Amino acid sequence: MRTLVVGGAGFIGSHLCDALIANGNFVISLDNLSRGCMANIEHLIDNKNFIFLEKDAGCSINMAEVFEQFNPEYIYHLAANSDIQASAKDPQVEYDNTMRTTWVLLDSMRKFGVKKMFFASTSAVYGQQCGIPLNEDTTLLMPISYYGSAKMASEAYISAFAHMNDLSVLVFRFPNVVGTRLTHGVIYDFIKKLRDNPNQLEVLGDGTQSKPYMHVSDLIKGIIQLSDTPQGVSNYNIGVDSETNVKHIANIVCDIMNLKNVQIKYGTESIGWKGDVPRFEYDLNKVAATGWRASMTSDEAVLRTVKEVLAICRA
Amino acid sequence: MRTLVVGGAGFIGSHLCDALIANGNFVISLDNLSRGCMANIEHLIDNKNFIFLEKDAGCSINMAEVFEQFNPEYIYHLAANSDIQASAKDPQVEYDNTMRTTWVLLDSMRKFGVKKMFFASTSAVYGQQCGIPLNEDTTLLMPISYYGSAKMASEAYISAFAHMNDLSVLVFRFPNVVGTRLTHGVIYDFIKKLRDNPNQLEVLGDGTQSKPYMHVSDLIKGIIQLSDTPQGVSNYNIGVDSETNVKHIANIVCDIMNLKNVQIKYGTESIGWKGDVPRFEYDLNKVAATGWRASMTSDEAVLRTVKEVLAICRA
Repeated sequence: MRTLVVGGAGFIGSHLCDALIANGNFVISLDNLSRGCMANIEHLIDNKNFIFLEKDAGCSINMAEVFEQFNPEYIYHLAANSDIQASAKDPQVEYDNTMRTTWVLLDSMRKFGVKKMFFASTSAVYGQQCGIPLNEDTTLLMPISYYGSAKMASEAYISAFAHMNDLSVLVFRFPNVVGTRLTHGVIYDFIKKLRDNPNQLEVLGDGTQSKPYMHVSDLIKGIIQLSDTPQGVSNYNIGVDSETNVKHIANIVCDIMNLKNVQIKYGTESIGWKGDVPRFEYDLNKVAATGWRASMTSDEAVLRTVKEVLAICRA
Repeated sequence: MRTLVVGGAGFIGSHLCDALIANGNFVISLDNLSRGCMANIEHLIDNKNFIFLEKDAGCSINMAEVFEQFNPEYIYHLAANSDIQASAKDPQVEYDNTMRTTWVLLDSMRKFGVKKMFFASTSAVYGQQCGIPLNEDTTLLMPISYYGSAKMASEAYISAFAHMNDLSVLVFRFPNVVGTRLTHGVIYDFIKKLRDNPNQLEVLGDGTQSKPYMHVSDLIKGIIQLSDTPQGVSNYNIGVDSETNVKHIANIVCDIMNLKNVQIKYGTESIGWKGDVPRFEYDLNKVAATGWRASMTSDEAVLRTVKEVLAICRA
């Protein structure tokens, strides 16, 4: 199948390119390299089933050319500004890279008759709803970050375009995803800070923020396994039924880096930054009913990721 | 108070300008005249508390100039492509006029420190959920029209901008609103068609579509009464607890126009067009708890509107 992976040089998108090629698909990987990088896909460049296009998916003219030339059958849309903390100061980034890319892709699908899509959504669409396990029908989507609102806006467009144009769309609402090729987030930050100064680690928030961390390899298996959906929108919370708090991540990173007596300085607030959702819990029954299940717990995913990130830094 | 009414030359926006001026406010009415028209506000042009700006609220540069020059304290945002049927063929209209206007206004409020907003949302955000009274916490917003999705995207942005910038936003989810200055919709269409051919009336759908119709005067009273909200987002379904079906509207129009023996030709489908939600029912308990209540039933609002539209056409 001819697949278009948008955000295909990014952390998760590049892993998806690997998996799609391994399964015999032709992959057009498209990325504006705002967060993705060539290093993530350089091992694929000579593959005859792979082509990379440096383009912005938020531009209708660009996308018309791509759809015209390559006639893709399945659109995997993972392009976004994935760094919530960074966009808190500049919501325009989320408008351009997260919401507008979705709108342009949906409108291109409408114009060119493409019917199948995967969309990378997020737990951030639920906003801050502590104390209840979030299922897909949870009331009141009330995002508190610009990132969450751009993903919710994307889901709104997917709902209408799917109805109006008979699309089949798989939507996964991701938790925190970790693994090799990670570009930001708590694990990445801690390693970077400790490399700069092995004696001290400053933590955003009081360290009690606790979330499910999922390894990218488990996520990719889920996307591949559930890609073929019936007409309409099939949305799933995807994740792990365990969680890891920030204090524990700090200890794991220090431990694996063999650093003793690090002075860990915690903040006083229960959130890392404004727009941060410090805790959430997923009800995973819907995705479990498909037979998919993560192979790693949250702690195992964090531990493996710390080792993977350190291995690359050493190389 | 210095108020900015965006979409202030439109059907509902112009009525709001009237009410705000009557209550002693200064009104900056802004409209790109894509659906609004000068006839709706010509009686206000010489009022010293009124100014009209023909500008597009979807343009950030325009809005920076307006916020800079007029320093508004309260933004009433009613700009949208309000004709769902028309945009079914061209979703770009909803992107530009319905969603983007919201985003630019919110971002302008962020930049200029404006804290208060009213937003005109719609029952269309709920999508097609028959058989259950829709309350504000109804699960799964699943719009089926481009219009509904652009309004839901707007609500998503409002949620995040309100959290990030300590805004106070009042959101009303409108039902079908009718009254003088109406520009489209079933009543307007029937009158227009019967003026063209008084012997025959072609109806989109089988006539069983049944919705609550609310008179614009009741809506405006609600907006004025509830404008002062606490910090955060206060959203309300607003409407009437009765409904009118399309067959009944056809009969009322023929009756008031004194037309006998009109051949009414119904379609075969239960919807008027793709994206149309043929029936919905609101749970109005939340707005009722504020003390607001519509003065007219759905049938009364339809009857009065038919007379109002005919009176203007005769003038």
